[in-house]
Amino acid sequence: MAYPQVAFRNTTFTGKSILASRRNTVAGTTLKTQLDQFKQTGRYDCFELKWHPTYDDHSMWPVPKHLFWDSDLAKWIEGACYFLETQYDEEIDEAIQYLVQTMRSAQQEDGYLNLHYTVVEPKGRWSNLRDMHELYNCGHLIEAALAHRNYYKNDLLLEPMVKYVKLISNTFGPEDHKLHGYPGHPEIELALLRLYTETGNNDAYKLARYFIEERGNPTGQNGEMFYDWEARQRNDSPWKRSDAYKTAGAHWYNQSHAPLLEQPTIEGHAVRALYLLTAVADLLCIEEKGGIAMTRSAEWLATLHRLWDDMVDRKMSVTGGVGAIEQWEGFGLPYFLPQSTPEGGCYNETCASIAILFLAERLLHLDLDSRYADIMELCLYNNVLTAMSLSGRAFTYVNQLGSSSTHPSTREDWFWCACCPPNYSRLMGSIGGYLWDYDVTKATEGGEEACVNVHLYASATLTFPTPSGDTISLSQSSDFPWSGTISFTLAAPTDTPVTLRLRIPSWTNNTFVLDPSLPSSKSPTLQKGYLTLPPSYTSSHSSFTLSFPPSSFEPRWLVPHPYTSQNTVFLARGPLVYCAEDAFNDWETDHFRDVVVRPGSKIVEEERVWKGEGQDEEEKYIALRTRAWKRDLSGWQSGVGPVRQADSTTGESTTLELDNSREIVYIPYYLRANSGGQGHMRVGMIRG
Amino acid sequence: MAYPQVAFRNTTFTGKSILASRRNTVAGTTLKTQLDQFKQTGRYDCFELKWHPTYDDHSMWPVPKHLFWDSDLAKWIEGACYFLETQYDEEIDEAIQYLVQTMRSAQQEDGYLNLHYTVVEPKGRWSNLRDMHELYNCGHLIEAALAHRNYYKNDLLLEPMVKYVKLISNTFGPEDHKLHGYPGHPEIELALLRLYTETGNNDAYKLARYFIEERGNPTGQNGEMFYDWEARQRNDSPWKRSDAYKTAGAHWYNQSHAPLLEQPTIEGHAVRALYLLTAVADLLCIEEKGGIAMTRSAEWLATLHRLWDDMVDRKMSVTGGVGAIEQWEGFGLPYFLPQSTPEGGCYNETCASIAILFLAERLLHLDLDSRYADIMELCLYNNVLTAMSLSGRAFTYVNQLGSSSTHPSTREDWFWCACCPPNYSRLMGSIGGYLWDYDVTKATEGGEEACVNVHLYASATLTFPTPSGDTISLSQSSDFPWSGTISFTLAAPTDTPVTLRLRIPSWTNNTFVLDPSLPSSKSPTLQKGYLTLPPSYTSSHSSFTLSFPPSSFEPRWLVPHPYTSQNTVFLARGPLVYCAEDAFNDWETDHFRDVVVRPGSKIVEEERVWKGEGQDEEEKYIALRTRAWKRDLSGWQSGVGPVRQADSTTGESTTLELDNSREIVYIPYYLRANSGGQGHMRVGMIRG
Repeated sequence: MAYPQVAFRNTTFTGKSILASRRNTVAGTTLKTQLDQFKQTGRYDCFELKWHPTYDDHSMWPVPKHLFWDSDLAKWIEGACYFLETQYDEEIDEAIQYLVQTMRSAQQEDGYLNLHYTVVEPKGRWSNLRDMHELYNCGHLIEAALAHRNYYKNDLLLEPMVKYVKLISNTFGPEDHKLHGYPGHPEIELALLRLYTETGNNDAYKLARYFIEERGNPTGQNGEMFYDWEARQRNDSPWKRSDAYKTAGAHWYNQSHAPLLEQPTIEGHAVRALYLLTAVADLLCIEEKGGIAMTRSAEWLATLHRLWDDMVDRKMSVTGGVGAIEQWEGFGLPYFLPQSTPEGGCYNETCASIAILFLAERLLHLDLDSRYADIMELCLYNNVLTAMSLSGRAFTYVNQLGSSSTHPSTREDWFWCACCPPNYSRLMGSIGGYLWDYDVTKATEGGEEACVNVHLYASATLTFPTPSGDTISLSQSSDFPWSGTISFTLAAPTDTPVTLRLRIPSWTNNTFVLDPSLPSSKSPTLQKGYLTLPPSYTSSHSSFTLSFPPSSFEPRWLVPHPYTSQNTVFLARGPLVYCAEDAFNDWETDHFRDVVVRPGSKIVEEERVWKGEGQDEEEKYIALRTRAWKRDLSGWQSGVGPVRQADSTTGESTTLELDNSREIVYIPYYLRANSGGQGHMRVGMIRG
Repeated sequence: MAYPQVAFRNTTFTGKSILASRRNTVAGTTLKTQLDQFKQTGRYDCFELKWHPTYDDHSMWPVPKHLFWDSDLAKWIEGACYFLETQYDEEIDEAIQYLVQTMRSAQQEDGYLNLHYTVVEPKGRWSNLRDMHELYNCGHLIEAALAHRNYYKNDLLLEPMVKYVKLISNTFGPEDHKLHGYPGHPEIELALLRLYTETGNNDAYKLARYFIEERGNPTGQNGEMFYDWEARQRNDSPWKRSDAYKTAGAHWYNQSHAPLLEQPTIEGHAVRALYLLTAVADLLCIEEKGGIAMTRSAEWLATLHRLWDDMVDRKMSVTGGVGAIEQWEGFGLPYFLPQSTPEGGCYNETCASIAILFLAERLLHLDLDSRYADIMELCLYNNVLTAMSLSGRAFTYVNQLGSSSTHPSTREDWFWCACCPPNYSRLMGSIGGYLWDYDVTKATEGGEEACVNVHLYASATLTFPTPSGDTISLSQSSDFPWSGTISFTLAAPTDTPVTLRLRIPSWTNNTFVLDPSLPSSKSPTLQKGYLTLPPSYTSSHSSFTLSFPPSSFEPRWLVPHPYTSQNTVFLARGPLVYCAEDAFNDWETDHFRDVVVRPGSKIVEEERVWKGEGQDEEEKYIALRTRAWKRDLSGWQSGVGPVRQADSTTGESTTLELDNSREIVYIPYYLRANSGGQGHMRVGMIRG
């Protein structure tokens, strides 16, 4: 298995696409915008270990405002290194080198490396794993170190991280003299497994696996659950807890309420849950590729599938956002998926959908099934891409489906907890690694054979070497996601059989045309949503076209599961979910809360071009126009109670006045909040 | 103003009615059942001040299991005294006398009287007003003392309570040397105002008013909010809090987040909010009747109306239940009114709807508007009456609109926090006082004039004396709530003009017939929902009939406000809301969650008789039969995401198969969980 964070280096974006455009913006603007934020906020030089006024802020508990600074810098370094591969920039290069140098100098003699517990609370190390993100920060630094090493070809950052991992391995583990703890915020597990995979560090593998297997042990530390024991060491009452904990002892917040294998449903903080599951998938991928074997593999795989299905079927918004509940930034009740704050929630943190991409990519290695790639595509093109402005200078953390007066649909330049912006940058830096994966193996008949599994469509070229020194190259070119003709060109040594598997998105209803067609069958069957082109086909067709007919790109109305209690319709086209905002519908002043649409209404497509300030190049998109009505609520006068008599024919409390229909303009959700307006936006309208 | 807890003594129930039947059950069964519970649980002799094993239980914090025992006994004494007025029972009488004797002997020398802080934590008095219910318990004891005095004509319980009030008055108040605190759970305020009204105790009035006016002062105690100051005295971290507090510093839980006059919406624990508002209404009623004037009366009245309307319009279930959120037993977001636990909540505590009756009754004194009586009737006949089994031996605390596997629709014999059962008893003991109110005043032309405002219909007689020594009597006789012909008989001295005002329920759509009719007008106009019969009419018609036509008792479909996001219809008939349960619909095994009904479907009424174990007499009710469909969810197979393509014609994800319709039987909600079954029940079905 090649991690996408490594494999992306074999992908070059060609021609225009949303992904290529967004990559250009991050490289040209966003990385420097974020660097400026670091300089303005004290992050940039924090590893000089001087006191900063922010450290005096005690308004928040238990997490002080500077607690994630280590990880903010780490994610930025990681993303910046990915972009340096293709676009050198001196300012960025120098910033990375400065940061790495200060991090090296900030490392303590025993290997410890953490801002808060070195400068602010030097005697508190490992005293609050539950809340204090010590191991989380380390994980991001490890990921940064791996990216740094791949670009700079030196170990200036990796070396201190390996030393730090050694210290952590000597501190935590199953042995009696070690602490039996695990991180409150999982992250280090997946970082350690990357470290193992890329460098063979066995300590890292063992530590990651220990953290995963020990998590939620009800009697792990001196007969107690670790976090309960740990709190007693601090003399903290069980009822003293951060605002993220719904109740005392709500260990489900960080997925430690039971061993993961015994958890029936996905619960708690969404990013924590998804980083943790990604690491579990890594363990299984390592085993799958002939690495270290897992104990109880089948149960771990079943756990991954069980929790994935629970999330996708019952706890995911139409945009691929997850985490309905703001209080714990996480999962709510099954099917509890309101669209906005006044309706009860909808958080859909950017980082959570990014983490779904991580997890889905691993699951595709374990089980090539397009349902994982469908969700990967859904998250990427909707909840993730919406998180940065087209200018590349402003971001969202929360991605609601509906705005409100207290939570308008707007972006911010920065956040005190700034996890999302650099997470977006590093994902875009490595996004090429998610388009496809490939493998070259020894063929049973001797020689090599190769395969490429294509998950996402854009204009890009994959080039990878074979062990014998040859090169294989696959290009795809298309106008995706606007229309569905994808031209492929394959170049491979004649003696290397190549199998291609092309994902057929579920929203196409499996209608596609391959040209030239496969000789064996008029309507080729799909294997778990992938169309397989065997070597017999690829060897005789170096160019071919996969087309999804125009009908599969027709706008379509979607409805949510009945148990959501949402009498709502959504509009989608291809992989894109659409929304309406007041910038294009100036008649709306109440966040589209009373707007009714009707499946069956005619929808007109309109190709438009977006070119705004800070945008390097024009970008095409397709707007959709249809009819809407405003619901009449005048019958609900005040003070007379909660219900009204239903119309005996329609069952409605009020009759829709069709004469008053008006045009409503929908734009792709990822384009929201780029065009002015007052921040009124909504994805799901009332089904009329 | 006469409190209904006093005025009920002038009402005699005659003939059959649900209310009379339920009163008989409480008198004959429930009071003794509850007394048995007291004896089994340690409550009965707790004021002997011996140690009880329960006191060693530290599993809960901050509220130990015995904390409300004072109030449990007090509410029972209060209710028992009401019933003794009409039905003497030696066992009950002796129990009351024993309890009063132990309470007297438990009083400390300085007047203090509280179980927990005398036996369990003797040095902790007044150290945690926020959580520990000290003043709440005192309030219920005051109410018990007043009921005791009215029946026993002695001060054996009132005397120690007056002494205790003196102590509290010396402890809390605006003076510098006193604490500037107020109860975490309001209750004592309304009790103190009853004490003032019935006995003229000025200390009680001043103390109640202080508690109300000081509440939520952000700088009341040494420049701090009282509960923050108090927590610091205990060395408690702001983040140490009971599970009822959503976040640290969430003072809205007990309505102390701001002075009440400045609170825009009704928030937090529902019973606390409603007891508090009832006391505010009492202050205004006292002023209205010529008692002590309030400061800022108009603002207090506006606050009452503002918070009432917020509750009724945005935070009330169709059954009159309030408090959507289990965690704080209270109000959620506006229009957030799901039906069951898996949908996100629905708590609807019995005590909260009882408190709405208290508040509505006061509001009717301030503003005779049938919208308050409509809600009073709604709460009584649905969320309150459902809280006791027909046998009188089992109770509900929570009254959801829909059951679930974790929360079936069942009753319990008792609760560790047993507020609801004795609250139900004392309400039923005094329910006659809610049917109507009356007044006799000096007429401008000399002599006396009287008025009676009739709020609720049943078969009952009101008899009250006039100051000059005469007697006025008004009888009503009807089959309410099953049909709508109410026969009235009035007997009054010929020289006393009597004005009657008869409530016209909103659900009748104001269709009624008065016979004989009023001479002045063919269609008499209503004043705020009341039909006024002037002395010219009442003096010439000692008997008359008010009839609501059969059409107003036809079953009707109700729909909730669109902002509830509930695509639901409810079935109602007269003041009764209906539900379906599996006991009468044996085809249902999933809590009716997928059941679709259609407004417009034919509904058949069926008169039935209920006669069960422990039921003294047969009781008639009307069941409703109509058609239902089961929603087909087979298209929602697992693992493929959260939405489905809508049918382009119907907008539905699945088409209802009309061939599969089946009969569904609805019964009144107040009768649920009396007929066996597995506890599957639902009020609102999907609107098909």
